[in-house]
Amino acid sequence: MLIKEKSAQAKEILKELHIDTWITFVRESQINGDPILPFLAEADLTWHSAFIINRDGSSQAIVGLYDQKTVEDTGVWDNVIGFVEGIGEPFKNYIKQLNPATIALNYSVGSEICDGLTHGMYLTMMELLSEIGLADRVVSAEKIVSALHERKSPSELANLRLAIRHTEEIFDMVARFIKPGMTEREIADFMKTETKRRGLDLAWEPMVCPAVFSGPETAGAHYNPTGKKVERGHILNMDFGVRVNGYCSDMQRTFYILKEDETKAPPDVQKGFDTIVTAIEEARQAMFPGGEGIAIDAVAREAVLKNGYEEFPHALGHQVGRFSHDGTAILGPAWEKYAEKPFRKLEENMVFTLEPRLTVKGRGTATIEEMVLITDKDAQFLSHPQTELIYIL
Amino acid sequence: MLIKEKSAQAKEILKELHIDTWITFVRESQINGDPILPFLAEADLTWHSAFIINRDGSSQAIVGLYDQKTVEDTGVWDNVIGFVEGIGEPFKNYIKQLNPATIALNYSVGSEICDGLTHGMYLTMMELLSEIGLADRVVSAEKIVSALHERKSPSELANLRLAIRHTEEIFDMVARFIKPGMTEREIADFMKTETKRRGLDLAWEPMVCPAVFSGPETAGAHYNPTGKKVERGHILNMDFGVRVNGYCSDMQRTFYILKEDETKAPPDVQKGFDTIVTAIEEARQAMFPGGEGIAIDAVAREAVLKNGYEEFPHALGHQVGRFSHDGTAILGPAWEKYAEKPFRKLEENMVFTLEPRLTVKGRGTATIEEMVLITDKDAQFLSHPQTELIYIL
Repeated sequence: MLIKEKSAQAKEILKELHIDTWITFVRESQINGDPILPFLAEADLTWHSAFIINRDGSSQAIVGLYDQKTVEDTGVWDNVIGFVEGIGEPFKNYIKQLNPATIALNYSVGSEICDGLTHGMYLTMMELLSEIGLADRVVSAEKIVSALHERKSPSELANLRLAIRHTEEIFDMVARFIKPGMTEREIADFMKTETKRRGLDLAWEPMVCPAVFSGPETAGAHYNPTGKKVERGHILNMDFGVRVNGYCSDMQRTFYILKEDETKAPPDVQKGFDTIVTAIEEARQAMFPGGEGIAIDAVAREAVLKNGYEEFPHALGHQVGRFSHDGTAILGPAWEKYAEKPFRKLEENMVFTLEPRLTVKGRGTATIEEMVLITDKDAQFLSHPQTELIYIL
Repeated sequence: MLIKEKSAQAKEILKELHIDTWITFVRESQINGDPILPFLAEADLTWHSAFIINRDGSSQAIVGLYDQKTVEDTGVWDNVIGFVEGIGEPFKNYIKQLNPATIALNYSVGSEICDGLTHGMYLTMMELLSEIGLADRVVSAEKIVSALHERKSPSELANLRLAIRHTEEIFDMVARFIKPGMTEREIADFMKTETKRRGLDLAWEPMVCPAVFSGPETAGAHYNPTGKKVERGHILNMDFGVRVNGYCSDMQRTFYILKEDETKAPPDVQKGFDTIVTAIEEARQAMFPGGEGIAIDAVAREAVLKNGYEEFPHALGHQVGRFSHDGTAILGPAWEKYAEKPFRKLEENMVFTLEPRLTVKGRGTATIEEMVLITDKDAQFLSHPQTELIYIL
């Protein structure tokens, strides 16, 4: 189903970009798998394997003999060749005959998700193309691969919505579970157990999914839950996601642990939290197809700065899909590590996170992460946005 | 533990190979992870990350700010820099100061496990090194990465032995479970359930782990179990492995389903099976540190051919470790797809499979896969070798 949707989409994208031929080239994909592979094949590939889709709508797969039948079964390839000794001859024969003006390969300086071709495999491909005089036809497939990841199909959106719903339910459950004195680790274990009970996978590595940070002076992000205890008067924040049918959620929530004499959060905590809520809503309202991520990031960054907080040391948001960090376009500042990503145009059916953060001194980190969908004219929440602190009594 | 063992081993290997500096360079490792990463870091990395080990015993990691603490916690790095905007400046400053004569990067035409650097990241690295005039110092790290994967440490061997023991127990259980009339899929489901019950992962993709082939005219390998039924007078063969603490087994067993009037296999089945047993034993006896895989493959291939069977269309054996296909050296013929792998010398503490196969006409595929360890003088079975057909009544 996914492979049918995506191989059809790929042919349209090749037309749109005026690229003749797109080649995904992998070997031993359990070891070095191109992140595009789930759109092309259902199983891992063992020997050198080439998946070739052309602008004229034709397609060809060339794989090791033992992978031939599994690849044929997907039903999307005009023809599947299974070789025994090596891919060289069948590959060169096919491409020579095809004689494409442009050949796109999966490499990219600026986008990791479009950079599935290893350097050794690049060298092998260039050698094969040189032998038939076509090496100078090679271009980066970055735009093809980006679009395939970014333009979510109906079935992809359905799975993303399902992942978000599970995540919200687990956040609701853990909110009732947390008590002062519990450790970050106990809270994380509860969420992992509930995820497993539902038959789901975590959206990223278990060591930091969920990430749970209690109070001030934590690592802040990407760090494993510790034995640190939940204390009254502190902020607790979490970063969590699940994977449903291959699609991820990625969300954060902020909790406040009331002191025994408090009925609501003190002004410093409330102000920090409200600043985050406002930053997210203002950023969402600034989003539209055709806009640039750098401008959206600036809106949220400014909302945080103008309230007297330090700016967050990361992008406002990223895309989500088969990976919790998906796609190329990002909502971020013009920092070296983001390359051209903040300047890519937003498109309909992209799914982004919005996740500003700030430090409330002596209390902890206020941070929310919502997920939004770009429509034909604006951005709509896929998650139910957090607008009030979750109180722990 | 593993990271401590392997980073120490890396320093020794750099001395042995006379290479000054080895750099592993990754970003968003949940998307494109270098297969060497588990030897260097416990968690996925988000932004551009460089893990640098030097022949003089010094080391340096340069990672995104949020990954700094997790990387520091491994305790093997002299220093860990956490950047915010980009890796360029801290990386160039460090390498310029270091001024290594050779800089090894993880790319390889001939070995997928040594080819973890994507082409986009290669271009980025070369640009950074050009800016400080060191681009001409770059060499392939193939020999470093191969040796790290291939020379199993005591803890790695302990985990491999454990994975083999579980696999043998599950084969024993399924032998009692199989009855004529069952489908390949039912048999596979039983083994998957038992693996899960033991809290283990499958060694490779669930779709084909186990692979179960009943009777003649099957896909033969790498294909998912079907609704085909087990029939009397047929051979059944399976390919299966589990992963224990990150380490894999990879084993095959051959079963014969007795006809109602049979008390033992007919001569054609027995001859095919015995040929495989002999091929494995003769190959094992030919193995020693310093030998070449091509010669070992030839021994088993000849044992099959001289008994009148067609030769098997794959290598006799591969290494096993964190992946079911691990390392570079292979026991295989000089076919294009195997590149230089069959000519690499065997070394102490390598772990190989031995897996010849042949077709018994009208009966099915006879194939056994054992696992052996290269010692200081020979090769010893890690698995309990199958020497008799497993009969299904």
